[in-house]
Amino acid sequence: MTLLKSWVSSANSADHPFPLNNLPYGVFSTADTDPRCGVAIGEMILDMQAAEHSGLIDLGDVALFDVPFWNDLMEEGPAVWGALRERLTALLAEGSAEQSKVEPLLVPMGQAALHMPFMVSEYTDFYAGRNHAFNVGTMFRGPENALPPNWLHIPIGYNGRASSVVVSGTDIRRPWGQLKSPDHDLPAFLPCRRFDLELEMGAIVGVASDGPITVKEADDAIFGYVLLNDWSARDIQAWEYQPLGPFQAKATATSISPWIVTKLALEPFRTDTPEREFELLDHLKDCGPMLYDIDLSVSLAPEGKDATTIARTNFDQMYYSSAQQLAHHTTSGCPMNVGDLLGSGTISGPAKSERGSLLELSWGGKEPLTLDTGDERSFLLDGDTLTLSGHAQGDGYRIGFGACSGKILAALADPYAR
Amino acid sequence: MTLLKSWVSSANSADHPFPLNNLPYGVFSTADTDPRCGVAIGEMILDMQAAEHSGLIDLGDVALFDVPFWNDLMEEGPAVWGALRERLTALLAEGSAEQSKVEPLLVPMGQAALHMPFMVSEYTDFYAGRNHAFNVGTMFRGPENALPPNWLHIPIGYNGRASSVVVSGTDIRRPWGQLKSPDHDLPAFLPCRRFDLELEMGAIVGVASDGPITVKEADDAIFGYVLLNDWSARDIQAWEYQPLGPFQAKATATSISPWIVTKLALEPFRTDTPEREFELLDHLKDCGPMLYDIDLSVSLAPEGKDATTIARTNFDQMYYSSAQQLAHHTTSGCPMNVGDLLGSGTISGPAKSERGSLLELSWGGKEPLTLDTGDERSFLLDGDTLTLSGHAQGDGYRIGFGACSGKILAALADPYAR
Repeated sequence: MTLLKSWVSSANSADHPFPLNNLPYGVFSTADTDPRCGVAIGEMILDMQAAEHSGLIDLGDVALFDVPFWNDLMEEGPAVWGALRERLTALLAEGSAEQSKVEPLLVPMGQAALHMPFMVSEYTDFYAGRNHAFNVGTMFRGPENALPPNWLHIPIGYNGRASSVVVSGTDIRRPWGQLKSPDHDLPAFLPCRRFDLELEMGAIVGVASDGPITVKEADDAIFGYVLLNDWSARDIQAWEYQPLGPFQAKATATSISPWIVTKLALEPFRTDTPEREFELLDHLKDCGPMLYDIDLSVSLAPEGKDATTIARTNFDQMYYSSAQQLAHHTTSGCPMNVGDLLGSGTISGPAKSERGSLLELSWGGKEPLTLDTGDERSFLLDGDTLTLSGHAQGDGYRIGFGACSGKILAALADPYAR
Repeated sequence: MTLLKSWVSSANSADHPFPLNNLPYGVFSTADTDPRCGVAIGEMILDMQAAEHSGLIDLGDVALFDVPFWNDLMEEGPAVWGALRERLTALLAEGSAEQSKVEPLLVPMGQAALHMPFMVSEYTDFYAGRNHAFNVGTMFRGPENALPPNWLHIPIGYNGRASSVVVSGTDIRRPWGQLKSPDHDLPAFLPCRRFDLELEMGAIVGVASDGPITVKEADDAIFGYVLLNDWSARDIQAWEYQPLGPFQAKATATSISPWIVTKLALEPFRTDTPEREFELLDHLKDCGPMLYDIDLSVSLAPEGKDATTIARTNFDQMYYSSAQQLAHHTTSGCPMNVGDLLGSGTISGPAKSERGSLLELSWGGKEPLTLDTGDERSFLLDGDTLTLSGHAQGDGYRIGFGACSGKILAALADPYAR
């Protein structure tokens, strides 16, 4: 696969995130329009509501784009997902006979504000990156017992809070919480002191199910992917997580990138899961190359200063694919719905510079990072802007995700003041 | 408070669950009508859609009962909740001038099927009954270390799956899952062998929030309560729950009773939380009597046989109230929405006969129960029907919850057969 050329010339650059090969789905508004679905092409956004109203997009009897989210399109299922992609590709390709009809429906990206691209039904976060699990386990239990006994047999996950998911660009308020310092006997209610990021990918479920599904069925049910930052209050987590797992430590916010990159756009970048010392049970086995070769990076910019890249890694570092996570999620009969979001778990490579959280990068705060600005960081400080970036590198083109960014605001002086 | 008399004579019996003092909210259908909101009064259900259309119920400009769930009424807030209760009480009271207009809108309960009374936004399950936490902790860690260090300071909870919540009467299919027997080195994918109930109450959030709220604000935000059975696959749980908590073990189903008993109906039954050896931090402190005196029981009927009551306890056994749980839930800034459901955690009294799960009643399977039928049970068997019941006992009247019931179906022979 090489670059597909579009008559939208800004889409034809080798390093632009949104060439014709990508066509990611978002929700935008302008000074003149309410939030509505749009497709990114180069520096422009195709207004899907206008495209549907004009008849240029016609996917059947039902209007799918009178709503400011992509869930209605997802509900139509994979055949319609494929038909839409084919139609968009034809409309926007160099030489399209319909260029003159489509051109008036394009909005410059610079004039658009971006919103949540879909309604999150429920949110689950996994813990399926081996280097991350090993690093965290080593800090808490030593390297011999770093991975829990179940870790190599099932993708460990926990349910998160859908209500906490926000779009990139949303400020993140440092939370309060109940903490216990190692040097105190009793806990106190204080602003979080160890606020952290987690570099993850989010998979969006596009096909509902009501009982166990195979890994292949799960792969077919995934609509697309976003970058995901699972903001984490490490001191709240340390005090609360035994015995039932993280709760308030993960409930302040989870940021996602604003463009859903479809599974269809990522097909050329599939890659294999790693070798395993224990064969997976049949219902979790790979059904083909299930991971994706997606370069990922994390940057941190102190207030008013330049950003430093603090980590680079790749989505191919996962031990379990999103499809395997979804298949496991259904084993008990758990009903899954369109719009369910699955966080991959923190993605860390084997090298120190490839770690996807400050907890790992600063080794629990013992080895602070020095940024290019000379500032030191163990955890996030107020005013820091944290940005996740990602793209798959094709032959002369990229499938980009757009940034997943958030700025840390100071904790409220009194969270109960009214 | 004594019995309030209604012109619906079946509501005036001292042991009927639905006297005029109660007025619980459900959703029903008949052979002639689609699902719609209804209010239970004695053996009848008031059709709220018809009552609104006729003008007998008029709560403002917006139609609240053209939908088959109570969320729209909840959205209106506590003042409207109070106005509706006052209006219903007037319409149904003995001597009401409007009896002749209301009578045609009543449907006999025997002709009605009951449905989910509200749309569950998100579901959280707590672990806030001290006897339960102590019993389970003792089995796993011995009595000295039974309660985790955080337990007496915060209500421990985890996020569950809203998609798994079903109404009483829904059959429960025994799940498959990944298990590891103590005598095997490796896990296997098998039907659950230790399927259990958990006797809980569910609190329904009726007021949304977007930051930390006080215990008083949380109490004001609760719309009502239901009985809740948190079906639990103990063998799946044992293998999966470290380090991030229960996941598939709790995702098969959670049953609730079909009638929302409003907080307003339960006001006369408020009671204090227990004495505490550690004072709670300010943001979690009681703001008055926060528990409720509600008698609870669990019965088990093997297929085709009579039911045996296997446990009796009371909601006043909780260490943390639902309001304290909700307040804790918001500490991190976690947004809460109308329709969020909070499970109390398993309610067990101090005596053996007061334990709210088979795990505790059979002490991990080591002391099987003998039912009145002569059958023995450590955990649930296929064909068993499990029923939770509850009521608050007033002076010559009861506030009843209606049953929360489910029958266990055999696991699928092959969960992936299509």
